[in-house]
Amino acid sequence: MIILGIDPGLRTTGFGVIEKQGNRLRYIASGTIKTGTAGALPPRLKVILSGVGEIVSSYQPTCAAIEKVFVNVNPQSTLLLGQARGAAITALVGADLDVAEYTPAQVKQAVVGTGKAVKAQVQDMVARLLKLPGLPGTDAADALGIAICHANSHDALALIGALSPALPALHMKNGRLV
Amino acid sequence: MIILGIDPGLRTTGFGVIEKQGNRLRYIASGTIKTGTAGALPPRLKVILSGVGEIVSSYQPTCAAIEKVFVNVNPQSTLLLGQARGAAITALVGADLDVAEYTPAQVKQAVVGTGKAVKAQVQDMVARLLKLPGLPGTDAADALGIAICHANSHDALALIGALSPALPALHMKNGRLV
Repeated sequence: MIILGIDPGLRTTGFGVIEKQGNRLRYIASGTIKTGTAGALPPRLKVILSGVGEIVSSYQPTCAAIEKVFVNVNPQSTLLLGQARGAAITALVGADLDVAEYTPAQVKQAVVGTGKAVKAQVQDMVARLLKLPGLPGTDAADALGIAICHANSHDALALIGALSPALPALHMKNGRLV
Repeated sequence: MIILGIDPGLRTTGFGVIEKQGNRLRYIASGTIKTGTAGALPPRLKVILSGVGEIVSSYQPTCAAIEKVFVNVNPQSTLLLGQARGAAITALVGADLDVAEYTPAQVKQAVVGTGKAVKAQVQDMVARLLKLPGLPGTDAADALGIAICHANSHDALALIGALSPALPALHMKNGRLV
């Protein structure tokens, strides 16, 4: 299973690709899609669309996970972030990927063990779990954390499935109850 | 020139397609894309993506225009509307359409002649301008109004171009200064 994690943003969208084989997680790639800081919204969303498209065609993920975002104190920022996240999700579903959503607290819990971890702890644990030679950037680390969270969530649901043979397998499609 | 106007929303996205030949506007089609009221966000955005895709392939617009949205009193609604608008714009730019943006006041000004018009006046004027046999629904009427606004804005910029021959034609691509 190859998982693409996305940390959405209008200026910077982080991405992280990992492979899960049994209990083992392997780092494949990570980085950011940048749209600059100026210009009209439609061409900036097009950059996110083509960026996600390139990542999908390069690494052929089997599923995707994206961070849930919350309202900002600045409503205008909330609106811009919402549009960027909408663009990223649209690019993913347009590539026929199922997209799971996790809150920042779920990601921190999965990676660090506590929902109240700070960004530096996420970076550090992502680097350890994936045996990286150095710390990834914060946006890429968040995206890798989302992918790790999805890998673990898939485990949890597979376990529930193993303990409850009455549940049909369909209930666990791509790590989410469906 | 065939113009696709979009009034974005998560539950209901209005669309309107008109043709502009010289000074004449001709109605082609209008309607809504509905995503239901429940379910996870990614499949709902996928409905918007495929809906816009179907409209584009059926009516082959040469350009698109979408309403600018504003922050809602409810920040959560702002976030959802932003994501839906991001999905619609992404679907349009993914179909290689240039996307112009207009505020509700610009649309009302273009259609009714005052930026403070109410929805019923927009519906009425859209029906008159396009010689419709009856009133379109409010979402479709707004989308047709956005398309009419873009048709008029294109006129205005073409006029500026005619009066200012020093401006290269590139400055008026698809009705927007570029």
